[in-house]
Amino acid sequence: MATKSLEILIDEFNRLPGIGRKSAVRLAFHVLEMSDQEVERFSKALKDVKETVKKCSICGNFSENDICDICRDEFRDKNIICVVEDSRDIIPLEKTKRYKGSYHVLNGKIDPLNGMTPDKLNLKSLLERVAKEDIKEVILALNPDLEGETTALYLTKLLKTFDVKVTKIASGIPMGGNIEFADVATISRALDGRQEI
Amino acid sequence: MATKSLEILIDEFNRLPGIGRKSAVRLAFHVLEMSDQEVERFSKALKDVKETVKKCSICGNFSENDICDICRDEFRDKNIICVVEDSRDIIPLEKTKRYKGSYHVLNGKIDPLNGMTPDKLNLKSLLERVAKEDIKEVILALNPDLEGETTALYLTKLLKTFDVKVTKIASGIPMGGNIEFADVATISRALDGRQEI
Repeated sequence: MATKSLEILIDEFNRLPGIGRKSAVRLAFHVLEMSDQEVERFSKALKDVKETVKKCSICGNFSENDICDICRDEFRDKNIICVVEDSRDIIPLEKTKRYKGSYHVLNGKIDPLNGMTPDKLNLKSLLERVAKEDIKEVILALNPDLEGETTALYLTKLLKTFDVKVTKIASGIPMGGNIEFADVATISRALDGRQEI
Repeated sequence: MATKSLEILIDEFNRLPGIGRKSAVRLAFHVLEMSDQEVERFSKALKDVKETVKKCSICGNFSENDICDICRDEFRDKNIICVVEDSRDIIPLEKTKRYKGSYHVLNGKIDPLNGMTPDKLNLKSLLERVAKEDIKEVILALNPDLEGETTALYLTKLLKTFDVKVTKIASGIPMGGNIEFADVATISRALDGRQEI
């Protein structure tokens, strides 16, 4: 018995990933309780993001300019490229403050069953960067799942034709994790990746 | 390293109830992948709901008109009022299709520790309805928690001064629920509310 415009808003929230019908109802009712200014600000933020955010012409990361802040940053090492599946993955990597190179966003991973073939990835520009610029190392920071591993293998093969070091971030027991409850694949990886101390 | 407008949108999502930082990031990135039309539609739905939805001058339910659809419906029994804490509660009650009376939305429950005193509830208009109209029964459909029970007691005391039947919806083991795992309070309620079959 919600009103029509409320029904529409509930549907809009329901369309978002991970928002079920019940959450959508809760969110829509919350909007009713927000002040006019708050709703206006939210509504504007949605439109602004679509209008201002485009993709960096170098790395494919989201950016408000033609070239993203990281690619423009003079203090970042342009000789290293960290390859990620998604722009989202850059946020946690940047949070570590350990990585000072540049990025390249693939916009997906090889997953033929879901129609993601290599030609749909932002690959051509990566190979161009490696071919034209003085790239010393390409770090593959792909998720350690079946599709991520496949993509890593595929990329390694392509990149090996250039004079560039290709590395992969380590996979193993997460910090604070428990060996007792880790799965076999993770423990195997942790063993394979063991390092001398 | 999200762009500024993206950061703003993440914050907006993060402000919504039940949406943590991680979900907010996921939702904001999803918006980036939505089409312009979709974002425009979502943005509009937010503003529309604030502009068009007001409160019914009779029952306090959300409505696009001065008087809500339920209060305007000639086929609904205006002699029975079902009192709910929140407009949201009307949706599941209506879904049952068992109730054909009218509603009254309190907009909260008595919870002095959180500043909710009886004078902040939509109570005066309820008493006026009972005093002026030919109300036969007031059904209290409040949540069976401490504040809901307190509110029910308070309302019962006020309503008893009028010639009106005051009832309360049953509390007990939910359908499909399990007595083995039900808490003591629920089982006690179920026992108290037992009915002859």
